[in-house]
Amino acid sequence: MITIHGMADSGNCYKPRLLAALIGLPFRHNEVSFLDGGTARPAFRAMAPLGKVPVLQLDDGRALPESNAILTYLGDGTAFVPQDRFAHAEMLAWMFFEQYSHEPHVAVRRSLTVYPALAAAATPERMAATLEGGRKALGVMELRLAAHEWLVGDAPSLADIALYAYTHVAAEGGFDLGETPGVARWVERVAALPGYRPMTWLP
Amino acid sequence: MITIHGMADSGNCYKPRLLAALIGLPFRHNEVSFLDGGTARPAFRAMAPLGKVPVLQLDDGRALPESNAILTYLGDGTAFVPQDRFAHAEMLAWMFFEQYSHEPHVAVRRSLTVYPALAAAATPERMAATLEGGRKALGVMELRLAAHEWLVGDAPSLADIALYAYTHVAAEGGFDLGETPGVARWVERVAALPGYRPMTWLP
Repeated sequence: MITIHGMADSGNCYKPRLLAALIGLPFRHNEVSFLDGGTARPAFRAMAPLGKVPVLQLDDGRALPESNAILTYLGDGTAFVPQDRFAHAEMLAWMFFEQYSHEPHVAVRRSLTVYPALAAAATPERMAATLEGGRKALGVMELRLAAHEWLVGDAPSLADIALYAYTHVAAEGGFDLGETPGVARWVERVAALPGYRPMTWLP
Repeated sequence: MITIHGMADSGNCYKPRLLAALIGLPFRHNEVSFLDGGTARPAFRAMAPLGKVPVLQLDDGRALPESNAILTYLGDGTAFVPQDRFAHAEMLAWMFFEQYSHEPHVAVRRSLTVYPALAAAATPERMAATLEGGRKALGVMELRLAAHEWLVGDAPSLADIALYAYTHVAAEGGFDLGETPGVARWVERVAALPGYRPMTWLP
């Protein structure tokens, strides 16, 4: 059985757990957190040199970092990966958008808000910059989701899972999804998928 | 013929140009820059809501953003994409690493250094943070490249192209590749690939 090393309360770590739930794939959860030094331990660093969770570990010991790369590995051959070449690239474009233009604002602002250990980093400048960047990213999603049910084509894909992870808890970072009603409806649509499990769920 | 909308002096825009050169794919270059307001024009925003280059445009008008997603589209079916499922995911892991942990430091520090228009943003704090983040990213690459010729498996892949783009000009941002000799040798290895063209090349 595969193991997902990760932190219960992390959107990035939730992504592979949510996909596994949606496709009915059994996995072990191993709690590793930056809050208690778990990601800094030598045994973890040997598997993940960058020191970040999640990390997928296969039965044979091989390890794969990067939440969105893990999604592509686990999702391969499922209905969550479009077969069409252009649609497949559009899916990855949203996933790169998520890591470059969304997560560093929407997720980071949430971290700065909810983790007392990061309070010193939550300067007014940082909070203002992440608010601006996050609202811009949610606005780009709204341009698509105001008129479409899913980010790519007409079915849910890995892009929706990747962007759902931190969008659905954006309010915890001070974002108001009432400003992006298409995004708000899409959040409810993802949560209604068969097999869906919330971020707090662990196997 | 495909069009790559991009900025001549941008590593992200160089990625698809370099891949096209390596696989012998003809394309048109259309110069669009943030420096002269090109990425803010309504016609560009209609094609690329996020307002970033590069953007790939097909003959039929369809547009694809995100440099690394463009690489996957253009590289599909070529020797630069491993067929093995795990190796394919490892390639994407390096590409997500590039956008999250490398580009925001190595590329951004270069931009803050070489573009006078960004001088006001080049605060001592920002320069120190990007130096630290960039050295960490280069160190993670060194762990792999000290003992391997390529980032994934034993052949060049899209991961090498994605990470080469800003690594080979890291010195312009004040990084010393002498600290990571495996990375320095790999930079020379990429530049020796058949069909290679430098960043300054435009068709």
